[in-house]
Amino acid sequence: MEEQNNFTAEWLLSTDVWTGLAHYYVSLPLYPVFQTVHFILTAVALRSEKGSLQFAFKHPIASCVLTFIVACAGGILANMALAKPPLESVVNGWNVFTCIVVWYLIFFSPLDLCYVLTFFTPLKLVLLLVEELARAKKIYAGVTLAASAYPNSLLAMAVVGMFKGSGKRWGITIFRLSCDPQSAGQHELLQISFATKAAFVCGAVYAYNQMTLLIDPPLLVLVCAVVFVSLRLCLFFTSMVDPFSLPQGLSWKIMTSLSHTPREIVQQEPKTSSKHEQLSKQRHKTNKQKRD
Amino acid sequence: MEEQNNFTAEWLLSTDVWTGLAHYYVSLPLYPVFQTVHFILTAVALRSEKGSLQFAFKHPIASCVLTFIVACAGGILANMALAKPPLESVVNGWNVFTCIVVWYLIFFSPLDLCYVLTFFTPLKLVLLLVEELARAKKIYAGVTLAASAYPNSLLAMAVVGMFKGSGKRWGITIFRLSCDPQSAGQHELLQISFATKAAFVCGAVYAYNQMTLLIDPPLLVLVCAVVFVSLRLCLFFTSMVDPFSLPQGLSWKIMTSLSHTPREIVQQEPKTSSKHEQLSKQRHKTNKQKRD
Amino acid sequence: MEEQNNFTAEWLLSTDVWTGLAHYYVSLPLYPVFQTVHFILTAVALRSEKGSLQFAFKHPIASCVLTFIVACAGGILANMALAKPPLESVVNGWNVFTCIVVWYLIFFSPLDLCYVLTFFTPLKLVLLLVEELARAKKIYAGVTLAASAYPNSLLAMAVVGMFKGSGKRWGITIFRLSCDPQSAGQHELLQISFATKAAFVCGAVYAYNQMTLLIDPPLLVLVCAVVFVSLRLCLFFTSMVDPFSLPQGLSWKIMTSLSHTPREIVQQEPKTSSKHEQLSKQRHKTNKQKRD
Repeated sequence: MEEQNNFTAEWLLSTDVWTGLAHYYVSLPLYPVFQTVHFILTAVALRSEKGSLQFAFKHPIASCVLTFIVACAGGILANMALAKPPLESVVNGWNVFTCIVVWYLIFFSPLDLCYVLTFFTPLKLVLLLVEELARAKKIYAGVTLAASAYPNSLLAMAVVGMFKGSGKRWGITIFRLSCDPQSAGQHELLQISFATKAAFVCGAVYAYNQMTLLIDPPLLVLVCAVVFVSLRLCLFFTSMVDPFSLPQGLSWKIMTSLSHTPREIVQQEPKTSSKHEQLSKQRHKTNKQKRD
Repeated sequence: MEEQNNFTAEWLLSTDVWTGLAHYYVSLPLYPVFQTVHFILTAVALRSEKGSLQFAFKHPIASCVLTFIVACAGGILANMALAKPPLESVVNGWNVFTCIVVWYLIFFSPLDLCYVLTFFTPLKLVLLLVEELARAKKIYAGVTLAASAYPNSLLAMAVVGMFKGSGKRWGITIFRLSCDPQSAGQHELLQISFATKAAFVCGAVYAYNQMTLLIDPPLLVLVCAVVFVSLRLCLFFTSMVDPFSLPQGLSWKIMTSLSHTPREIVQQEPKTSSKHEQLSKQRHKTNKQKRD
Repeated sequence: MEEQNNFTAEWLLSTDVWTGLAHYYVSLPLYPVFQTVHFILTAVALRSEKGSLQFAFKHPIASCVLTFIVACAGGILANMALAKPPLESVVNGWNVFTCIVVWYLIFFSPLDLCYVLTFFTPLKLVLLLVEELARAKKIYAGVTLAASAYPNSLLAMAVVGMFKGSGKRWGITIFRLSCDPQSAGQHELLQISFATKAAFVCGAVYAYNQMTLLIDPPLLVLVCAVVFVSLRLCLFFTSMVDPFSLPQGLSWKIMTSLSHTPREIVQQEPKTSSKHEQLSKQRHKTNKQKRD
C-alpha cells in the first residue's frame, strides 16, 4: 500500500505539471490580491484589539499609519535584520493607497458593513486560505533574501523567513502599546503564536533545502503552501489553537523534570502574574476569531 | 493688478539674483549657526518638559546624551530608514561639543540666565526664524538623500524629508519615557505637531519637484523657507497653533459622516481616555511657548 | 627606584616577548572559551534579576531568546550603529547552541547546581577575569570595526567600542521590560555602570591610538586587559563599586556650583523619584554579586 503511494507520488512529481504550477505560484506577484487580503486581515485583527475603534476615532492618522506599519512589519523587520532599508515597504505607492482604503473600510464603513462581512464564514475562510498561500511565498522570499547575505546560516535564513511570514504578530506590539500603554513590555515572544512557530519551522525547512537543494525550491514552497492551507482548514473547523503546544509542553516537562523548582515560584505565581495571565487567557479566547 | 504682480514675480525670478541667493542659501553649512540654534531650541524644549530639571540634576549624563539624541533624531531616523549608519551624527566632534555646552548653559547656567533669556521675545523670534531657515534646508537634504536610494518614490522621499525636518518631535518620545515612565506609548503619531505635518508636505513638494524638475530645486527650497518663516511669524503673533487642523477636521468629519459610530465609544471616551486627554490638553497649552 | 622601574619596563617592552604575546592574545578567537564564559555570566546576571526565574518557567522560549539577545547585545548594537546586519550574531550556530545549553543549565539544572556553583568564590573570580580579558578584545574589535567606517572620528570609535564592551548592560533593558513591565523607561543611561564607563574610556584610548599609532595596537589591548583584570581584582576584594564615582561627583559639584538650583527640586525629589531611587539602591546593593 505504501509502496503504491510512493509510486504515485513519484509519478506525479515526475510530471512537469507540478513543477510548472509551483514555478507559476512562486512567480505570482504579491501586490494586487495577496497584499490586499493581507491588509484586510491585518486591519480586522487590529480592529479586534481592545479599544482600537476608540483609538481610530481619536487618532485617525496614527491608527492608519500603525495599521500600515503592522501590515508591513514582516518586511520591515526582515530588512532591518539584514541592514537593508526598512523604508522599502513605503516605496510602492499603490501598496500604501490600498492599505489606507482597506483601513478606512474596515474601521469606518457605513453600518460597519465591511468589518461585519469579514466574519461571514465562507468569505472569512477564503481570506484566511489566501493569506496562507501568501505566507508560504513570503517566507520563501525572506529565506531567499537572507540566503544572499548568509548562504551558510540555516538559523539566519529561518529567522528572516519567520519575520516575513509572521511579521504582523511581531508588529502588533507597537499598535497595542499605542492603544493601551498598560501593555508595555508585551510582545510576541511572551505568547508565541502558532503562525510564528509555523513560519519559523517552514523557514528552517526552506533554508535547509536552500543549502542542500534536495528538491526544486518552488516545489517545496508549493508543498508548504498546501500544508499551511490544510492546517488552517483543520484549525478553522476544530477548536484546536496550536498543534505545537502538545509536543512543546511535553518536551518542556521532560526538560524541567530534573530541575529544582523553588517553592516560592509555585506560591508567588498566582500573585505576581495574575494580570499577565488574565491578559493571556483573554487573548487566547479571542484568538479563534482574529487568527491571522 | 494680479497680472502686474505676476509680471513682477516673473521678472524677479528671471533675474539671476534669486537663483544665486537660493544656491548660496542651500550651500550654507548647517554647523556653526543653524546647528547651534537647533541645539538651543531643543534644549529649551526638553527643559520645558515636566520633571526634566530634576531629571538633569539626578542623571546629568543621561540628560545630556538624550538631549543630543533628540537634537539629532532627524538625522538618526532618516539614516535608519535608509539603512545608513545612525552613528553619523556623532562623527562631527564639534557638533557634540556644542550640544554639551548648550545643554549645560540651558540647564545649569548661573541664575538660570540662559534659559530665561530664550524667553526674551526678540531673541526667541530670531531663534525660531533661524530654525525655520534650517528646517527648509534639512528637509531638502533628507529628500536628496532618499532620492539617491529611491528616485521614483515620492512617498519615501517625503517621509525621509519629514524625519529630517521634524526629527526633534519624534525623538522627544525617548526623552519623555526616561523622564517619566508613565508616558510609555506616547509618541508623535498620537499628537502630530504642525512641524511634522508641514515637514511632510514640504518634503512631498520637494520630492515632486525632484521627480519632475519643474523649478530649480534650490529656488524651491528658498520659497519653502520663506513660507516657513512667514508661517512661523503668523503663528508667533496670533494664537493659532495648527493651520492644518481646520481642513483636517473638516475632511475627517466628511470621511466619518457615513460611518457607524457605536454608542459605546461616545460613552466610554470620557473614562478610558481621560488621562490621555488631560496630557494632550496640558501639552497643547504649553505648546505655544516651546514650539520648535 | 622609579627610574629603575621605567628601565625594566622599557626593557621588557623592547623584547619581542610582549609583542608576541599581545598579538597571540588579540588573535585568539572569542568562540569556545571567552564566549561561553560570557554566556554564563550573562545568564547568571539575568537569573539574578527579580522575577526572572518565574519568567523562565512561564515563558521558556522568551527567556532563552532574550538571554541570547542580551548576551549578543554588544554586537547587535555595534552593528546597528554602523548599519551592518544585526542578524550577524545568529549566523554562528555553535554560538546559539552554547547559549541555549548555558541558559538551560543556569536556570534549570538539577538542584540548581550550576547556578549555585557560579557563586563559589574561586570559580566566580576566574569567570570574571576571563570576562575582562574578553572585554578588552571585544572593545578592540568594535573600535577596529568603526575605524573602517569612520577612521577620523574618535567619538564614533569609542561609542562602538563601548557598545561592544558593555553591550550586556544596554541589552538588559529589554529583558527587564519583558520580566517586569513596570521597569519601562529604565535603561543603562539612567544608571551608568562602571563597565560602561570603563569600556567607553578604553574605547577612546584605543581610538586615539588607532588615529596616532603611538604604540602597536595589540600591545595596547594587552595593557588594557591587564588594567581591566587588576581593576576587577580590586573591585572584587574591596567594597568599591565604581572608581569613577568620586571624580565624577566632584566635577559635577563644580559644574553645578554656580547653577541656580530651584527650591522645588530639593523638595520634590523625595516624592517624585522615591520609587526610582529605591530601585537604584536595591540594584546597587545586589550589584556586587552579579557584576559583569
